[in-house]
Amino acid sequence: MSPLRVGVVGVGVMGADHVHRLATRTAGAELVAVADPDRGRAQALAADVGDAISVHADPLELVADERVDAVLLASPGAVHTEQLLACLERGLPVLCEKPLTMDAESSEQVVRAEQELARPLIQVGFMRRFDPEYAELRSMIGSQRWGRTLVLHQIHRNLSVPNPRFRSEMIVRDSLVHEVDCARWLLGEEITAVQVIAPAPTSHALEGVADPQITIFEMASGAVVTNEVFVNSRTGYEVRCEAVGESGSAIIGRPGSGIYTTAVGETGGGWGGRIVPDYRERFARAYDLEVQAWVDEARRGGVVGPGSRDGLAATLACSAGMESLRTGAKIEVPQTPFAPRR
Amino acid sequence: MSPLRVGVVGVGVMGADHVHRLATRTAGAELVAVADPDRGRAQALAADVGDAISVHADPLELVADERVDAVLLASPGAVHTEQLLACLERGLPVLCEKPLTMDAESSEQVVRAEQELARPLIQVGFMRRFDPEYAELRSMIGSQRWGRTLVLHQIHRNLSVPNPRFRSEMIVRDSLVHEVDCARWLLGEEITAVQVIAPAPTSHALEGVADPQITIFEMASGAVVTNEVFVNSRTGYEVRCEAVGESGSAIIGRPGSGIYTTAVGETGGGWGGRIVPDYRERFARAYDLEVQAWVDEARRGGVVGPGSRDGLAATLACSAGMESLRTGAKIEVPQTPFAPRR
Amino acid sequence: MSPLRVGVVGVGVMGADHVHRLATRTAGAELVAVADPDRGRAQALAADVGDAISVHADPLELVADERVDAVLLASPGAVHTEQLLACLERGLPVLCEKPLTMDAESSEQVVRAEQELARPLIQVGFMRRFDPEYAELRSMIGSQRWGRTLVLHQIHRNLSVPNPRFRSEMIVRDSLVHEVDCARWLLGEEITAVQVIAPAPTSHALEGVADPQITIFEMASGAVVTNEVFVNSRTGYEVRCEAVGESGSAIIGRPGSGIYTTAVGETGGGWGGRIVPDYRERFARAYDLEVQAWVDEARRGGVVGPGSRDGLAATLACSAGMESLRTGAKIEVPQTPFAPRR
Amino acid sequence: MSPLRVGVVGVGVMGADHVHRLATRTAGAELVAVADPDRGRAQALAADVGDAISVHADPLELVADERVDAVLLASPGAVHTEQLLACLERGLPVLCEKPLTMDAESSEQVVRAEQELARPLIQVGFMRRFDPEYAELRSMIGSQRWGRTLVLHQIHRNLSVPNPRFRSEMIVRDSLVHEVDCARWLLGEEITAVQVIAPAPTSHALEGVADPQITIFEMASGAVVTNEVFVNSRTGYEVRCEAVGESGSAIIGRPGSGIYTTAVGETGGGWGGRIVPDYRERFARAYDLEVQAWVDEARRGGVVGPGSRDGLAATLACSAGMESLRTGAKIEVPQTPFAPRR
Repeated sequence: MSPLRVGVVGVGVMGADHVHRLATRTAGAELVAVADPDRGRAQALAADVGDAISVHADPLELVADERVDAVLLASPGAVHTEQLLACLERGLPVLCEKPLTMDAESSEQVVRAEQELARPLIQVGFMRRFDPEYAELRSMIGSQRWGRTLVLHQIHRNLSVPNPRFRSEMIVRDSLVHEVDCARWLLGEEITAVQVIAPAPTSHALEGVADPQITIFEMASGAVVTNEVFVNSRTGYEVRCEAVGESGSAIIGRPGSGIYTTAVGETGGGWGGRIVPDYRERFARAYDLEVQAWVDEARRGGVVGPGSRDGLAATLACSAGMESLRTGAKIEVPQTPFAPRR
Repeated sequence: MSPLRVGVVGVGVMGADHVHRLATRTAGAELVAVADPDRGRAQALAADVGDAISVHADPLELVADERVDAVLLASPGAVHTEQLLACLERGLPVLCEKPLTMDAESSEQVVRAEQELARPLIQVGFMRRFDPEYAELRSMIGSQRWGRTLVLHQIHRNLSVPNPRFRSEMIVRDSLVHEVDCARWLLGEEITAVQVIAPAPTSHALEGVADPQITIFEMASGAVVTNEVFVNSRTGYEVRCEAVGESGSAIIGRPGSGIYTTAVGETGGGWGGRIVPDYRERFARAYDLEVQAWVDEARRGGVVGPGSRDGLAATLACSAGMESLRTGAKIEVPQTPFAPRR
Repeated sequence: MSPLRVGVVGVGVMGADHVHRLATRTAGAELVAVADPDRGRAQALAADVGDAISVHADPLELVADERVDAVLLASPGAVHTEQLLACLERGLPVLCEKPLTMDAESSEQVVRAEQELARPLIQVGFMRRFDPEYAELRSMIGSQRWGRTLVLHQIHRNLSVPNPRFRSEMIVRDSLVHEVDCARWLLGEEITAVQVIAPAPTSHALEGVADPQITIFEMASGAVVTNEVFVNSRTGYEVRCEAVGESGSAIIGRPGSGIYTTAVGETGGGWGGRIVPDYRERFARAYDLEVQAWVDEARRGGVVGPGSRDGLAATLACSAGMESLRTGAKIEVPQTPFAPRR
Repeated sequence: MSPLRVGVVGVGVMGADHVHRLATRTAGAELVAVADPDRGRAQALAADVGDAISVHADPLELVADERVDAVLLASPGAVHTEQLLACLERGLPVLCEKPLTMDAESSEQVVRAEQELARPLIQVGFMRRFDPEYAELRSMIGSQRWGRTLVLHQIHRNLSVPNPRFRSEMIVRDSLVHEVDCARWLLGEEITAVQVIAPAPTSHALEGVADPQITIFEMASGAVVTNEVFVNSRTGYEVRCEAVGESGSAIIGRPGSGIYTTAVGETGGGWGGRIVPDYRERFARAYDLEVQAWVDEARRGGVVGPGSRDGLAATLACSAGMESLRTGAKIEVPQTPFAPRR
């Protein structure tokens, strides 16, 4: 079977990471094109990882490139709609980094366009679904060996956010969105209401930014999910999830796993380990597995993992979250009108 | 210094535990009297642990007993008011198991009566304040080495509740009450609002009982506390607390501490440890330290630990919690009018 | 039942610790006398914890004191023989800090003198037998739920040893001795051979001191025990034991138990906890339980825990260890001729 | 750059695993041939993973196959010498599963043949060197942030060994060999002496088989390594290593990492996790990284990781171990005469 010829759109931090992944540790893929409005950057990256890689300043040109079998979109969310629609039109499998698009309307437009095709083409980059620990947790929940799952406790901490234009809403849209997808996927059901509670903020956040945030999801079955998102935690990237069933519970992502050391501290000895600084290290394996699965399935003519409908559902829940953040009230989440992928 | 002659009122599970504690592992105390409406039970217990122990069917008779220097109240909450007032009248130091009393009005009556005395006499049995792990956590919070503490996550699970008349409110009054006191004590401030969220209940709870419950406390400083209380968890007694500061966090009570074993399981090997079945094992050391501190301080003419005002504050927060459970709304907590103990 | 009137001999670090324990947190005991060649120190300590406490410069005077019901020996090992024999002569229960005596000959003399009495009187201060984790491990081994126990791995690290006259043998006599007693007690059998292996020493030890030491015990049943003793580990007091059975294993004393925190480290965030600096903190509870058990049993006319024969057996094994350290050879351990206590 | 065309010799458990790895999750590799004396089995496997894969019954035929750029040897150790020499003769890069060969003489022959070539070609399958936790441990040791490393404690447990012809020596040759390589690689020095101590064996081992075994390595620097190898542990695959430095220590492979669950056990609740059943799960990532690194480096004309000299050194240490097992004595390890790879 010939390799899948992949084009990558967007060569920022995430896109460059994917370029290296495709070029050096993905089986069955051949990186054939990159696109970025910053053509020089794309050029330099292409030169770094191979030869005979086309470079485009215009992403739509890459989508139209005859050599490209499939597209990995790592461009900003604001330009996803146009690029996704172009991929669908050409019938190209596409792995789209989250968010699917920036609002419900455009997400619905994308889902509708995809559902009109003979077969689905879009995988959304909720990489946690490919993380082995998350997968084990989901399988445990699905087995019902502890009965129904009643509660999830999710924690999401980042070291810091240097962006000087950062606003409270971005915590919902860019960070909580992962918890939204995890809750839906782990429990296999929709979020029906979202309530954001803002504690007195840390002094390490920008003036006016509500960080941390405590968020409550109500699920269709009546299950409840608590979330802490804290993007200026100053400690590192901590992502944990505890699922509580009728007769048992499970936790993933505890600090305390892995290697630990003892050493002389300032006030006597201590034991402990390192907290990973960011998502690229924590989810390195998940990203590898995600992209490999996407390539494998695309070569077989199929698609796996979270789809455009999941991207839309995440957008709907996050929109409700942003409204709750503004108003302080619990907000009902409108349900997507589309049927799940067969 | 002569030993403190202690009388114990109530010889149910908790009272009998205290009787053994005072008789066999508390320094400076002499158990001189026990009282219980079930006189036979009190008689049997007294005979078991010593000689020359007076036995009373009427608790007030014990309070009036000339040999008694101090009283440990382990009677049902409904009779606390009368018994506490009797102790105050006789000027006896008293260690009162929680709750102080059953409602705010009677709690205020007790606080007022005590504040009219020359010196405070009441210690309330919030034993967690004497647990070494909780004490270490509080000291870490108080040191502000990670700045202000913004969030607490508290988890409280019991194995099961066999009581056939158990009702949802009891989760608030008898279990959440400990989290109420911990939140106030750890953070050093009052709870200003309580919101109870009831997930779809476990099938192991009685029909109509909301178990588990997720409860949110808003604190005076703007800190937020999330609580899970799950009294039919089927796994054991799990009490955990995570404090999240501006640049660090700490957890106590993790499962995973202590001894662990590996063994052949049904589907291959596993590692792990036992979860303690109940509070008496988990907080054995805390109870010992609590009673020893009470005895030591009473012999010196003083009182330590949580006082009647803390008991009243807990009652006020739990009353708000019960109202939130009924209405689904967030309820403001009225603040106690009394000044803290000097 | 009247309290046990206790005299403490030796008010160094360990003795002073016991004086506070007896005076403030042991039920049923009354501290009535202290003795130390440094009379001023004894005087100051006595004044600190009570009144009406006799102070002796001569330990044998304390043993002869009519008010003393029982003696706690915390004097240097070199004077134990004489003091123990005096206690036995007066028929006083005695809790003797390890070592029982400094050599096998004198230990045998003590055991013989005790066995001639109508009832045993000596408890040796191997406090780990009272540590809850060690007790749980022993009970697990004894249950044989994993079959026979084949191997123990014991680790014993101290922060540092400031003593400028410290010699390699002291690691065997003062530190390994605890592992000797644990191995015998956990496995319920005698050590038959000892081999000490000395790695290249740490640069933090005194010139010429073999630290760390790896020691192998062969047990009567064929079980094997590995030991690491490292008294200048620079990290703190770490005492661990892993027992390996035919179909399971268990570990106690892992770093990683208890509270842990996350914080900003020099090179990014880390998680972890404190290592206790010394044995007094690690075994605080064990010491309390040890002394309480000694007092309780002495008041009933009995004796519990490790006895003089265990002290002798430890001396025999440590003597073999010291010879192995000198010669590099595996040394057989002579077996004590005395029968175990009934 | 064109992909590396790989032939796999041997399609037993390990070989079949590598065939799937090369065919589905290794970038830059193309599986072009498989060989196995059991031609039918090789045929079936080839059909399973691709088309246009040549199948050989004779491994030397595969080595001579013009399409083959590089060879992965997963055949039994007894035929390695001949196959390795054939690869060297043809100038083919080869990844050889351990052991390099069955005895020191043949290993030396292979090393000598390779050293006569212009460039090295052999990588030996000590996959642990590619495990992220081992790599982190080695980097910590190498940094000397805790000074020199004085002691390693290595533990290696297998669930069980069903082989009815299993003998004690195989524990040394097939299991301890990994610890031999880890000790050499982690500490960066040679083993100078090996002593095997055999506890009374588990009743789950075959009659006459010494299982578990405690083995002591003395290293050139004076560091000491303790090893427990227990191949019928009945609990699962547990591989741990603790490194003890002059002012700190580190552990990898603790049970207790990763997901854990709580559940109702037979005697009340417990918490814990699964122990992986075998090396293929524990070292899945290490194998992937090992093969990817081999492919990447072979395409660049180089070789990485452990080489033939490391295979020889392991053979020399294991031979000493087998002699110690027979005699009970400590055996000096002869040092390889060959210089390390440049």
